[in-house]
Amino acid sequence: MKTLIVHAHPEPKSLNSSLKDLAVSTLEAAGHEVRVSDLYAMNWKAVVDAADYGPEASDPLKVARDSGRALTAGTLTPDVVAEQEKLLWADTVIFQFPLWWYTMPAILKGWVDRVFTHRFAYGVGEHSATKYGERFGEGTLAGRRALLSVTVGGPESHYSERGINGPIDDVLFPIQHGILYHPGIEVLPPFVLYSADRTTDADFPDVAKAWEQRLLTLETTEPIAYRRQNFGDYEIPSLHLKEGLEPKGRTGFGLHVRG
Amino acid sequence: MKTLIVHAHPEPKSLNSSLKDLAVSTLEAAGHEVRVSDLYAMNWKAVVDAADYGPEASDPLKVARDSGRALTAGTLTPDVVAEQEKLLWADTVIFQFPLWWYTMPAILKGWVDRVFTHRFAYGVGEHSATKYGERFGEGTLAGRRALLSVTVGGPESHYSERGINGPIDDVLFPIQHGILYHPGIEVLPPFVLYSADRTTDADFPDVAKAWEQRLLTLETTEPIAYRRQNFGDYEIPSLHLKEGLEPKGRTGFGLHVRG
Repeated sequence: MKTLIVHAHPEPKSLNSSLKDLAVSTLEAAGHEVRVSDLYAMNWKAVVDAADYGPEASDPLKVARDSGRALTAGTLTPDVVAEQEKLLWADTVIFQFPLWWYTMPAILKGWVDRVFTHRFAYGVGEHSATKYGERFGEGTLAGRRALLSVTVGGPESHYSERGINGPIDDVLFPIQHGILYHPGIEVLPPFVLYSADRTTDADFPDVAKAWEQRLLTLETTEPIAYRRQNFGDYEIPSLHLKEGLEPKGRTGFGLHVRG
Repeated sequence: MKTLIVHAHPEPKSLNSSLKDLAVSTLEAAGHEVRVSDLYAMNWKAVVDAADYGPEASDPLKVARDSGRALTAGTLTPDVVAEQEKLLWADTVIFQFPLWWYTMPAILKGWVDRVFTHRFAYGVGEHSATKYGERFGEGTLAGRRALLSVTVGGPESHYSERGINGPIDDVLFPIQHGILYHPGIEVLPPFVLYSADRTTDADFPDVAKAWEQRLLTLETTEPIAYRRQNFGDYEIPSLHLKEGLEPKGRTGFGLHVRG
């Protein structure tokens, strides 16, 4: 595999950084190529602004349009271009981060906001009365697979079907489906470590063993069965799931996972 | 009302900035006090790091613990303290932002990550075998109300019950419930402007009228009926919703809204 690890934690001695380091060593020892975007170490700029687009930044700035123009014209800022090139190089992308306020840390969201430009990760393909782009199963990043490795402060029960935070599959849906599957990346079931704030050095060997096992079986892990947008499951142009396709009682985000 | 508007868009001439400006003028004309945190104009630092906590930053850095210690010790960085003071001053908080990748822009997520410190917005109250803090209906920011004003690129149908992005209530749940209701803020139904990329100057008067109407009725708008954590609806300590409380067929995030 050619694996890109995108890592977002400020502390090199943190649990997250240990999991990132273990992923690098485990995958390299198994003969895979690994590249790392350690966002804090890179002092990654988290905020989209006109400077990202060079001379293609218009006045007034139009983030979507200008980012696509800059992509096409080759005037995107070099740090963004480098990340897009890593994504195109990789066949597997691992995101390592702590769940802060039920989603990714700002520095990682800023990686998405800046790297996933128009014409690269959205606004790809025909947009007309009969087609709303190539996305959700198609797109620039089709053929790649991704995995979220997430540490969570609270206990697992809070993220279960009836848990107060909602099911973890739903909490992660805007990232897994909305961000990753959107430009065509298949998403593997996440590696989630709960009660992470209570994890001690004594717990780490068990955590490490579970993580290594996931890493060494990535190639044979089945992705989440999200429905493809343009292959008959959705009404056009509403993009409503067609009646009757959902398993009985399934509602909300879960509608968009096959049977 | 004492209203804080937290605004996150890089372009002062954007639709989002126009909605922010309209909120200021409408509320002030109606006799309300208004303060604005215009995050791009403030050059808001989006990324949590040790510098936020001054001498309370430990080595290795522990984000949760150190942020709470710095709060207690009074060593939080002044930009964070200023935002916490605005939140404590306000009785109403409006968030104005474009939905980027199904959530808030990184600069606004960075406002949450940095301002919502331990002991301020989470980790408040007793944590024991019988109580998991004062949150979801209680907390430091109880008594306040918030409203998301969000522009969305896609059409409304994509965010309906069967829409491919999931229902907008579910898309916004991690923000509305997870971030805002968590420290005790009541959340009003959002003001969502769909197909925002196709909104022209000619459409603005209608948009403005709808927004003014929401602004001038904020005081009488009923909040979303999220369930309070510590008042009998949840099992302890699992924080599972008790069996039978949900309306028939309700699953996922929707479980946590009263029937």
